[in-house]
Amino acid sequence: MSTQRHDTRLDRFVDSYADRTNGMRASAVRALFAVANRPEIVSLAGGMPNIKDLALDVIADNMARLIRDHGAQIMQYGSGQGELRIREKILDVMALEGITAHPDDIVITAGSQQGLDLVTRVFCDPGDVILAESPSYVGALGTFLSYQTEVVHVASDDEGIDPAALRDTIVRLKSEGKRVKFLYTIPNFSNPSGLTQSQARRREVVDVCNAGDVMVVEDNPYGLLTLEGEPQPAMRATDPDVIYLGSFSKIFAPGFRVGWVLAPHGVREKLVLAQESATLCPPVFSQFAIADYLEHYDWRGQIVTYRHMYRGRRDAMLEELSERMPHGVSWTHPAGGFFVWLTLPDGLDAQAMLPRGVNARVAYVPGAAFYADGQGSNNIRLSFCFPPADRIREGVQRLASVIEGELEVQEIFGTRTTRPSRLHGPSVSPDLAS
Amino acid sequence: MSTQRHDTRLDRFVDSYADRTNGMRASAVRALFAVANRPEIVSLAGGMPNIKDLALDVIADNMARLIRDHGAQIMQYGSGQGELRIREKILDVMALEGITAHPDDIVITAGSQQGLDLVTRVFCDPGDVILAESPSYVGALGTFLSYQTEVVHVASDDEGIDPAALRDTIVRLKSEGKRVKFLYTIPNFSNPSGLTQSQARRREVVDVCNAGDVMVVEDNPYGLLTLEGEPQPAMRATDPDVIYLGSFSKIFAPGFRVGWVLAPHGVREKLVLAQESATLCPPVFSQFAIADYLEHYDWRGQIVTYRHMYRGRRDAMLEELSERMPHGVSWTHPAGGFFVWLTLPDGLDAQAMLPRGVNARVAYVPGAAFYADGQGSNNIRLSFCFPPADRIREGVQRLASVIEGELEVQEIFGTRTTRPSRLHGPSVSPDLAS
Repeated sequence: MSTQRHDTRLDRFVDSYADRTNGMRASAVRALFAVANRPEIVSLAGGMPNIKDLALDVIADNMARLIRDHGAQIMQYGSGQGELRIREKILDVMALEGITAHPDDIVITAGSQQGLDLVTRVFCDPGDVILAESPSYVGALGTFLSYQTEVVHVASDDEGIDPAALRDTIVRLKSEGKRVKFLYTIPNFSNPSGLTQSQARRREVVDVCNAGDVMVVEDNPYGLLTLEGEPQPAMRATDPDVIYLGSFSKIFAPGFRVGWVLAPHGVREKLVLAQESATLCPPVFSQFAIADYLEHYDWRGQIVTYRHMYRGRRDAMLEELSERMPHGVSWTHPAGGFFVWLTLPDGLDAQAMLPRGVNARVAYVPGAAFYADGQGSNNIRLSFCFPPADRIREGVQRLASVIEGELEVQEIFGTRTTRPSRLHGPSVSPDLAS
Repeated sequence: MSTQRHDTRLDRFVDSYADRTNGMRASAVRALFAVANRPEIVSLAGGMPNIKDLALDVIADNMARLIRDHGAQIMQYGSGQGELRIREKILDVMALEGITAHPDDIVITAGSQQGLDLVTRVFCDPGDVILAESPSYVGALGTFLSYQTEVVHVASDDEGIDPAALRDTIVRLKSEGKRVKFLYTIPNFSNPSGLTQSQARRREVVDVCNAGDVMVVEDNPYGLLTLEGEPQPAMRATDPDVIYLGSFSKIFAPGFRVGWVLAPHGVREKLVLAQESATLCPPVFSQFAIADYLEHYDWRGQIVTYRHMYRGRRDAMLEELSERMPHGVSWTHPAGGFFVWLTLPDGLDAQAMLPRGVNARVAYVPGAAFYADGQGSNNIRLSFCFPPADRIREGVQRLASVIEGELEVQEIFGTRTTRPSRLHGPSVSPDLAS
């Protein structure tokens, strides 16, 4: 019977989807990656960490020992909250950023992205408002919107979120009868801006949120990957009501899909219920693999190695940008993390330019992906994490040529560039890998 | 500032939670496990598979080789849909139940539980109706309710769902203006009943659903663990519009948290978007570990080994039940899977009896956990999967004594047993491990 239906209708279920499904943004990350992964293209788009220099022999031996000695435990169902063994070790990681906590207050998640999902699930009804930096992480925006929330960007400058604008925004939204649930922020080496909030600014931001009864959700995947000086104290280090999201994806490796949420006790209980409902328990095998890594591998030394490696790549990118970019292009100077945020001269459209970039064998993420409200059309996120330094330089050179070409077109025709008719893909192309 | 708040209020965030959070059921699995895991207690409660006889040396060696040769790939971010390598191998698994499909139609999930979560997320708005067997899997009910849906149980007999009752229920609900989204069913060796739907019944059920424009979601974690004869064709084998949930938790091991959804193309696309929003990508390391297991280990032979082992345990449980249980107690005779479903004589309350069971050093799951509507008060789910046969026999003996004691009390006082005042925990205690 269904065969007939198949013939007459592409998706039989098209009328059955939930309202939230219509709000899910079709990320073109797959289309972009399909193109950007071609070897001739330098991808400055992806946020994938460079993990190829990990000591795989040591990790392999440790993993084999772990399976031989504890296989029946690490391949079994586990705790909905996550294994105590890894929660205890996570305290050591967070201590590097001044956080003191109890393992009971940690919930393990299937990557930090699931932390975002569970926090939104627990707090947000449709129509609730989430505040975010300008710009903010594309993967978080997608999750927030999938819960039918309204994302409102708060004006930010080089030191982070503007406290006065934050206060005004909260007051305005409340006067409109809206429920403002939390501020989502990446205070260290933000994705995509690369900027870091000063300690004074963090304090002000937390104070404004507390005064307005708005929670603070601090997402901190890059905090330990500082390229200048020591890691800064987290926002959570000074206020135990801050909900903190951590990740092993950048300080070790992302494929295990292990992140965590540190939350006040009552919130933690709700998150565990949500986790049980979502997955029964987060990946057990992965949790033991990472706990073992933290116990038997010089993970602090590995972070130092990562810093050194990423510093070289960042320096290559910043040098090449200042040598090659035409007048009128500006960019951030990140003190850590993975990203540089470019601002093109007025009138250039980063998304319309992308197909020409790919034609010139360089890929990036257009800035509009990092806003829920249409800003960012003349911004670009560049990643210095994955390609080696010489490829980064090549990529920046190619990008500079493309921008120069756009500027020439603009000068001749005195108009905004439009999309070429022949090249449609890749489209919006936010890079999901945080 | 928050310190002051902490002093005066247990959960500062109590007014901030989403409506759905209030609908999250506090499963007492943790409380139960804390008690039931004591070595002196025979737990017939948990649905944990017995994996201790896996060839850990072989798995350890394979895993070490995989990390040495492909570490930088298997520890990296992966596809939101899941890795092609495992999706291709899953076709071999499903072929054992008569399913032909394309790897493009599979989405990998963080355990089959996440498949339930994503399917519900994609299809259900608050107030939508999900139909389920009587009784049905507690973990699914929890997820459905967390999406603020209404679960309606359809009358079922020893052959499965009653097609006439199904038709009547759909007609009645639609006449009430309700949106009935899908039927959730475990056709093979159901959790908790242990019953299997006949092939004729499956066909009727699918036909009734198709006629009523209600999707069928077939959850099949136990189908290959048949203890009598060969595996049956899945519902999906005869109708490609059935949404099929598969799992490695019972045919290999649950700790990897790898399951999958096989869905029609349009639905699959929505599920991938939902997966990216929920986790970016399902556990990559786990997926490669399982793909490697399917390529380098005699996984079909392992399933035969599992069948032999579980058959011995089921036989021990059924024998002991028929020798020990007092008159008036009845139970199912599963041809596969992990579970036997007991019905106590009228007037006995399985949940009220549980503390006396634990006092007698036996644990089980009260039947009410497997209904969303208060049925099941005189039912019990017994698992024969985890303890060895002699412990199962001991557990059944203890349980028989407890039931005899209840019946004596009932005979003397002619009244329903009430809960003892001294022993409160464990409470409802559904066992989340499916």
